[in-house]
Amino acid sequence: MTDVPEPIRVGVLGARGRMGLEVCKAVDAADDLELVAMVDQGDLLFSASDTGAQVLVDFTNPDVVMDNLRWAIEQGISVVVGTSGFTEDRLEQVRGWLAAKPGVGVLIAPNFGIGAVLMMQFAARAAKYFESAEIIEQHHPRKLDAPSGTSMHTAKVIAEARAAANCPPMPDATKEEQLGARGTDIDGVRVHSVRAAGLVAHQEVLFGTTGETLTIRHDSLDRSSFMPGVLLAVRQVRQRPGLTIGLDALLD
Amino acid sequence: MTDVPEPIRVGVLGARGRMGLEVCKAVDAADDLELVAMVDQGDLLFSASDTGAQVLVDFTNPDVVMDNLRWAIEQGISVVVGTSGFTEDRLEQVRGWLAAKPGVGVLIAPNFGIGAVLMMQFAARAAKYFESAEIIEQHHPRKLDAPSGTSMHTAKVIAEARAAANCPPMPDATKEEQLGARGTDIDGVRVHSVRAAGLVAHQEVLFGTTGETLTIRHDSLDRSSFMPGVLLAVRQVRQRPGLTIGLDALLD
Amino acid sequence: MTDVPEPIRVGVLGARGRMGLEVCKAVDAADDLELVAMVDQGDLLFSASDTGAQVLVDFTNPDVVMDNLRWAIEQGISVVVGTSGFTEDRLEQVRGWLAAKPGVGVLIAPNFGIGAVLMMQFAARAAKYFESAEIIEQHHPRKLDAPSGTSMHTAKVIAEARAAANCPPMPDATKEEQLGARGTDIDGVRVHSVRAAGLVAHQEVLFGTTGETLTIRHDSLDRSSFMPGVLLAVRQVRQRPGLTIGLDALLD
Amino acid sequence: MTDVPEPIRVGVLGARGRMGLEVCKAVDAADDLELVAMVDQGDLLFSASDTGAQVLVDFTNPDVVMDNLRWAIEQGISVVVGTSGFTEDRLEQVRGWLAAKPGVGVLIAPNFGIGAVLMMQFAARAAKYFESAEIIEQHHPRKLDAPSGTSMHTAKVIAEARAAANCPPMPDATKEEQLGARGTDIDGVRVHSVRAAGLVAHQEVLFGTTGETLTIRHDSLDRSSFMPGVLLAVRQVRQRPGLTIGLDALLD
Repeated sequence: MTDVPEPIRVGVLGARGRMGLEVCKAVDAADDLELVAMVDQGDLLFSASDTGAQVLVDFTNPDVVMDNLRWAIEQGISVVVGTSGFTEDRLEQVRGWLAAKPGVGVLIAPNFGIGAVLMMQFAARAAKYFESAEIIEQHHPRKLDAPSGTSMHTAKVIAEARAAANCPPMPDATKEEQLGARGTDIDGVRVHSVRAAGLVAHQEVLFGTTGETLTIRHDSLDRSSFMPGVLLAVRQVRQRPGLTIGLDALLD
Repeated sequence: MTDVPEPIRVGVLGARGRMGLEVCKAVDAADDLELVAMVDQGDLLFSASDTGAQVLVDFTNPDVVMDNLRWAIEQGISVVVGTSGFTEDRLEQVRGWLAAKPGVGVLIAPNFGIGAVLMMQFAARAAKYFESAEIIEQHHPRKLDAPSGTSMHTAKVIAEARAAANCPPMPDATKEEQLGARGTDIDGVRVHSVRAAGLVAHQEVLFGTTGETLTIRHDSLDRSSFMPGVLLAVRQVRQRPGLTIGLDALLD
Repeated sequence: MTDVPEPIRVGVLGARGRMGLEVCKAVDAADDLELVAMVDQGDLLFSASDTGAQVLVDFTNPDVVMDNLRWAIEQGISVVVGTSGFTEDRLEQVRGWLAAKPGVGVLIAPNFGIGAVLMMQFAARAAKYFESAEIIEQHHPRKLDAPSGTSMHTAKVIAEARAAANCPPMPDATKEEQLGARGTDIDGVRVHSVRAAGLVAHQEVLFGTTGETLTIRHDSLDRSSFMPGVLLAVRQVRQRPGLTIGLDALLD
Repeated sequence: MTDVPEPIRVGVLGARGRMGLEVCKAVDAADDLELVAMVDQGDLLFSASDTGAQVLVDFTNPDVVMDNLRWAIEQGISVVVGTSGFTEDRLEQVRGWLAAKPGVGVLIAPNFGIGAVLMMQFAARAAKYFESAEIIEQHHPRKLDAPSGTSMHTAKVIAEARAAANCPPMPDATKEEQLGARGTDIDGVRVHSVRAAGLVAHQEVLFGTTGETLTIRHDSLDRSSFMPGVLLAVRQVRQRPGLTIGLDALLD
């Protein structure tokens, strides 16, 4: 007789996409999880419920994710969502569906990189103790947008923490400034965007006060780095009924 | 009529030492603090109480700090202590003195650098989420000890957090290892000690898991960097009766 | 009529190995090169000469590389070699074969990463201008040896440049040193070896003198980074009769 | 009897300025140099020639430096100049004066940091081997101009090296770019300017090609870092008759 708990039965929606495929591999490799359904375009959602999936992971696209969510919640299946495109309206709709199914949990996260989430948490916490804060994000040159979404979110988080603590404006005596750098200014926090061959996805948050600097740097080399965060969410989503936004709540 | 609070009256013990001098300057420059006494070898402690000091800052030496503390506690004056050499015995004695004076606060900190303290807090928090952790500390070549005290403390904090979370040993396939590097291994956390002209005091904590790394780096360029931490302690020590160890408790 | 030069006809030995495959792809993608033969275990070398290959690239193994070289030189075909295991004896033998075929060039390189070669050249050049030099090399935890071959070679190059310029020993007041760090000391140059999940292959060379440091850092993320160096060698090897060791000679 | 060469007799113009004072200390501390004159506003230049100065170091200001130079050249004294404000017209005038005094050497350098000069030399040499190059310069927030002069000079040097090697434009798919970052674009090389408390003067040059990056970083912590470069110039200027621009020529 053994007291090893039953593995959680997991289905993956968008299973043939790049992220979905990684999720399938990661679930398959984890002892405490069982991959019971791989669903993609053309497959029936029922195949997921038929196999007794307890948690679904959705890396599909904005066009189908809402239908997936409504169906899963109705079936009483909890969902971890990495698909993008969630407006406040959409979140409100999901909350409505969940209200009718009190036992079901949905976690929607814009970023499953635990390192990236910790970087943002640390940045929020450090912000008020330093006179200055700037962000340097560095990505491969095929990236279409600059600055990156993560860097802009980090900048906002820093600006909010500084505002809440009544920090004065950052010192900056620059008189002669020019145009032409890639990057921007988010509520007083400068974001610098480097694009170069050989880079993947990197971000540095620099805090400084007289005599010292504190730098938090995150380097992400491939999408396998998101899997620990996805699996953490899969393991915890059923214990968190209702809607959870972001991985933050799961890290302590 | 104004409701600006009265400034806190501050005395500095060890006022002619390198750190003491910095503290005098920093207190003097702060609007909400008033420097009322500068005491050093040969001066009488009474001069501090005569001027109505409400908080004393002690950057003296292990030989005299205990006498200073006993006297200050008896006078009902709270103390912020940066002097080193506090054994568990000494701390116990201070607790005893404080027990008889319930309104008095004493804060003893090995490191007043807010950046360094945050680095250690962040390291403790990140430790369990990553497979690997190593520390690189870099200092000027006049430093006598290697690894630095801060790096060894950080390594311990990481090792404890990993043990508490039942993390497996870090992956390391190294077969052929040699001697001769500066640094050590603290409970499984490797610490690398770089010594080079041109450096001041720097530390990098590297966390890694498949596909990503998170790096926390602290650069300290001069002792002015400790002043925000000293002033934070001066402002809060009277609201913290009893003995407080380290700056951690004051950072949120 | 056009004056575009004829593409160089290239054969790859070890074409099904990890590096060989990359070379095939890189040659195929280059406008001025033509992939005419892909040879691996079980294939006949003649297939390379039959197709009129002008340059061969050898990423095979130490057991067969000498036979490949003798045959190619006899055929009058120049060779770019990335296979390891070349002792001074072997090099002497190759020189002997080449002596009989004055028009043929052979280039043997331990490292085709242009970035790594430049890092070593820059380190050699900077060495004598700084009081201190240390190396931090960082690799994935599956690596068997520590320090890395590149870091030890770099350390030697630095030590030689310092000796040639009569530099005094590096300043280092360390009194209390411990064991247990990964790394070593190569002729006075300390090498620190970091091993962590999430890393690939990185090296930092730190030079310092009072008031300033100069750091040269190389990050290599995958073996595609060696291809520009391989192609550079392929394009130039026929203009360099005899034996050339290392990529250095080709960089200016 | 000894064959130690006579020390070089050195006079310092602008001896009470911040840089001049450092030069006086550095000359004084060097065994092979003798500080024979410290001249500043109100002092007579003759005091320098009267003491037999063989080399003058000029850290004065643009208003007086030309008079100093004319006088020194007439006296047959070689000069090392760190004063700024040299236009092409001024350089031409100095060349004219020197033409009449063939044995005299004048070295005018915008930057005496050996590390900074090496960084620029290495950047020039690496430029053509990489697809991408960007510069991140980081300074204290009291700096008035952005980007820094050194970063703009480095960017120009990189752009010129790439143009000379017919490098294609750097890859950059950025579609949505915003305004507001500190920095600029110099002939296609992006320069990012970070300004934060706790920083002194730092510059990072990043080169990237598929799969690898090479980074050259210079950290300058105080003006003592310029002294090795000044002393190198003092020791060599008499062997370099005529006008020399920049420290480059002296580094190998």
